[in-house]
Amino acid sequence: MATPSLLLSRPDLDFLLYDWLDIGSLTTRARFAEHSRETFDAVLDVCAEIAGERFAPHNKRSDAEEPRFVDGRVELHPEIAPALQALAGTGLLGATADESAGGMALPHVVHAACSAWFAAANISTFAYAMLTTANANLLLAHGSEEQVRRWVQPMLEGRYHGTMCLSETQAGSSLADITTRAEPRDDGTFRITGTKMWISGGDHGLGENIVHLVLAKIPGGPPGVKGISLFVVPKYLVDDDGSRGERNDVVLAGLNHKMGYRGTTNTVLNFGEGAHTPGGEPGAVGYLVGAPHTGLAQMFHMMNEARVGVGAGAVALGYTGYLKSLDYARTRTQGRPPSSKDPAAAPSALIDHADIRRMLLAQKSYVEGGLALVLYCGRLVDDLRTATDGEERDRLALLLDVLTPIAKSWPSQWCLHANDLAIQIHGGYGYTREYDVEQHYRDNRLNPIHEGTHGIQAIDLLGRKTALRDGAGLRALESVLRRGVDTARRRGGEAADLAERLEQAVGRLVEVTTLVHAEPDPDVRLANASVHLEATGHVVVAWIWLEQFLAAGDAGDALRAGKRQAARYFFGYELPRVYPQFDLLARLDRTTLETDPAWF
Amino acid sequence: MATPSLLLSRPDLDFLLYDWLDIGSLTTRARFAEHSRETFDAVLDVCAEIAGERFAPHNKRSDAEEPRFVDGRVELHPEIAPALQALAGTGLLGATADESAGGMALPHVVHAACSAWFAAANISTFAYAMLTTANANLLLAHGSEEQVRRWVQPMLEGRYHGTMCLSETQAGSSLADITTRAEPRDDGTFRITGTKMWISGGDHGLGENIVHLVLAKIPGGPPGVKGISLFVVPKYLVDDDGSRGERNDVVLAGLNHKMGYRGTTNTVLNFGEGAHTPGGEPGAVGYLVGAPHTGLAQMFHMMNEARVGVGAGAVALGYTGYLKSLDYARTRTQGRPPSSKDPAAAPSALIDHADIRRMLLAQKSYVEGGLALVLYCGRLVDDLRTATDGEERDRLALLLDVLTPIAKSWPSQWCLHANDLAIQIHGGYGYTREYDVEQHYRDNRLNPIHEGTHGIQAIDLLGRKTALRDGAGLRALESVLRRGVDTARRRGGEAADLAERLEQAVGRLVEVTTLVHAEPDPDVRLANASVHLEATGHVVVAWIWLEQFLAAGDAGDALRAGKRQAARYFFGYELPRVYPQFDLLARLDRTTLETDPAWF
Repeated sequence: MATPSLLLSRPDLDFLLYDWLDIGSLTTRARFAEHSRETFDAVLDVCAEIAGERFAPHNKRSDAEEPRFVDGRVELHPEIAPALQALAGTGLLGATADESAGGMALPHVVHAACSAWFAAANISTFAYAMLTTANANLLLAHGSEEQVRRWVQPMLEGRYHGTMCLSETQAGSSLADITTRAEPRDDGTFRITGTKMWISGGDHGLGENIVHLVLAKIPGGPPGVKGISLFVVPKYLVDDDGSRGERNDVVLAGLNHKMGYRGTTNTVLNFGEGAHTPGGEPGAVGYLVGAPHTGLAQMFHMMNEARVGVGAGAVALGYTGYLKSLDYARTRTQGRPPSSKDPAAAPSALIDHADIRRMLLAQKSYVEGGLALVLYCGRLVDDLRTATDGEERDRLALLLDVLTPIAKSWPSQWCLHANDLAIQIHGGYGYTREYDVEQHYRDNRLNPIHEGTHGIQAIDLLGRKTALRDGAGLRALESVLRRGVDTARRRGGEAADLAERLEQAVGRLVEVTTLVHAEPDPDVRLANASVHLEATGHVVVAWIWLEQFLAAGDAGDALRAGKRQAARYFFGYELPRVYPQFDLLARLDRTTLETDPAWF
Repeated sequence: MATPSLLLSRPDLDFLLYDWLDIGSLTTRARFAEHSRETFDAVLDVCAEIAGERFAPHNKRSDAEEPRFVDGRVELHPEIAPALQALAGTGLLGATADESAGGMALPHVVHAACSAWFAAANISTFAYAMLTTANANLLLAHGSEEQVRRWVQPMLEGRYHGTMCLSETQAGSSLADITTRAEPRDDGTFRITGTKMWISGGDHGLGENIVHLVLAKIPGGPPGVKGISLFVVPKYLVDDDGSRGERNDVVLAGLNHKMGYRGTTNTVLNFGEGAHTPGGEPGAVGYLVGAPHTGLAQMFHMMNEARVGVGAGAVALGYTGYLKSLDYARTRTQGRPPSSKDPAAAPSALIDHADIRRMLLAQKSYVEGGLALVLYCGRLVDDLRTATDGEERDRLALLLDVLTPIAKSWPSQWCLHANDLAIQIHGGYGYTREYDVEQHYRDNRLNPIHEGTHGIQAIDLLGRKTALRDGAGLRALESVLRRGVDTARRRGGEAADLAERLEQAVGRLVEVTTLVHAEPDPDVRLANASVHLEATGHVVVAWIWLEQFLAAGDAGDALRAGKRQAARYFFGYELPRVYPQFDLLARLDRTTLETDPAWF
């Protein structure tokens, strides 16, 4: 590509993957020994190419021409299927799976970078692939050999697609309250009855079959989340030879019409309502995954991956919006800087206005910071998977656990804000559908909601992840942040100055989190969890920027100078936001608890 | 209405108008002597009723079924015209105009409250009325008697509609660069040629005629904004007897398709391109308003009114979103508070979760704070209009000048954020078009852009309004804020505590603004104007909340208890944001200026 892509920056990806995360060193590990920088680059190249040529072109069209409910099934925009076929052809659906399972044994960090291209080009079309991969990965981890053979193989080949069926109309955030039932049959199968809500990719004609992973309760089990089991419920039953059998009783009940993310059909599904009677019996046929009543833990295997994936999607939307607003700011002229007094002088490019540069620096700091964060999490997954030392594995798992709600929420908040700034730079044009940025903003607004809202992530971080094992999670995070501080301090000069500012923030984070953990009343302890999540996210991303500042070194090229400047921006404009937030947390503010609902 | 409205809160309006702003006292002034609380209430009642019954019902439909370009003209959703006729029937189009001009001589503050009902119900349909009123008010102030008779009267009767034609494709924020020309003719008329962009209400079939107010340059005038003149350019010429004459050469060139605000058609208009030749001559016929080359000053008369109007619209959208999310939070159950250990316990209402209450308090503080701010500005206009003392008039004008960019931008930012929180409270449902809040969020996103972007307002506040006459504007603002501090301090108790916190913020605002004003390099001085605007806005709204705290007194009713709690929220969660912003301003941060465009 002669002109730089407006989806992502490959030079930035290279900087993050090779200069900062040193992923070349992964190839010395047995799992990745077949790989090299050349194979990584080759897969990145092909993903960038397919994203640009097959995904981006229909992004606007599949937004304008939504999925439709026709004759009991979903009709998708016709450009979606061929794009997904092209993606399947790259092997990306099983990128990180073992080669024995039909995968490429690609590092997660490389997969994350590849995925970002597709998400930036067309997150709605890519969602079908993401869901299928997540479904397959869950079954690879928890399914039987038979289940892997029957369901996973065709998914990795792009013939079957996958969904996740968790929510119900009355139970979104609160999975404890699901009512879908699974009745055991003598042959070891189950019959599922219930209604699932918000099912992305719940119906379509993209492939031969749809593999629903469904949370349901087996009668007689414990109440709440401890009674949840996980089932494979295919749209069509599959015979032992792999040929498609009878229609299962999974029926499309309706479509949800969303503000954005419109190309991804989002459905209400009825299970076992009687439209079909497979084998002459009522109920949708379901196959238990793993042991009964362990469904939530299994789903969280997928969910943690999906949560980082949501953050990565938010980053990708933020990133492409940033590049488009940057392109606009370079080419559009308007007004003159305050120091120009001559109305007859030629107008300036937008980028010459300080406030436009502020909005570009903010976007850059959010999207490049967010990308670095999600790639770091990908690298952690790879390190975890290849760690041989038990203690090290424990440390890595803990760190990944703590970072997951941040990697989900921080980009969902700030890369959405980046899209807001991208619109603002475009002025009135950005508010029109003739430009791309309004769609990115609409698409990105989903990310603070799905896979656990901000509020849910916040309780997860403050109430569980950082508190685990008497604060071991918090200490794992602290130790990584302090290592960054120490390295920067040794570097001296400006790096040492940034280190000092980060150290102050880390100290406050640890001090305040510890203080809040010590509060005995759980309602008070968690009352300001969202404020804690926001503040912690900003401290973590400040560390990410310090890391990038260090990785950029003193080199004079524009990319590295830009990294240093974005770090300065983040430390100057963004990091100081955390202090009023920590002050609020430190005083265990009870304003929300003390508000009588009648006062609204 | 038996059930409380989900558009606005009438009890809140009554509290603000009567308890806080004491608008009853206005009726002692000659201009408003015909009015009483009864007449105010009557007009508020009828506006609330028409807004609820004629505007709200088609809000979703006119969003989904956008205006269409058919045979060279715009077709609007059919429910728009009868709604506007109902509005015209209330007399609201000329509400604040003199009775001699066909108006009601209603105080601006009451008109603002009435307008908020319509904007909350359907801002897109209301926009046609707003534009017509603004157009009429400008001509009442600057037009000749003949122009008032010919154009204003039919607008106030709802027979003609008005537009404002400022922007061009190459000139949005920078009006200095407009190229539309106005050639004088011997008969005193002008012939206009050029293309105008972003013209809301630029074409439709709502009434008999459309009165465009067009900025253009008369050849030979000074360069830049000093060479801009203002013209009336009607769609149809009008004969001396008021009957509709020949078609003028104003031609619809295209429609802009927006993310939101879709019911308001937004157009590109060609003037004098030759589609029509009124009187057999080329060019659109235009009538000069006031003196040549004074067009921008006249337009700013309208613009200042329109800017507060934009803020009021943002408030209205925020307010209705708040009430809808409050209603949802009271009725929707989900999960249990952290202190509940029993999974079999009945789920809690959303409003019982601390994080939901945080999002409700935030919205309440933004929308009630914003409403109070724009009503305060309305009251200032009334005071200004009826002031008899020159010094007092000067003080009021200065204060209104300083508050205008804040009243425009603060609600545009924070009431949009309120809509974001309203979506978040609804969870996945809020992201669908089955609920209202996603539309409010899309509609509200226009407000930080039109009538001068945030960046433009920021330069206006820091570079002009607060700096005027050696800082007289800043001192005018400071004196109002300090008066609030003094009153609260005398009240003692919690009020005195809030006063102390506000005083600290006001002190910092004045100190930092003065320091920035003293910077000699205009590029440095204005580099962080947007940060200054945000911080100043929060200090002003903190004062607004202190005022409401005081007006609420110690009364035990829920409304007043809610006011006190929202004030506590704003002082606890919101006001502290300003200190890092002031620190950044105080160090005259040059990060944006020092960023080489090549570094992005």
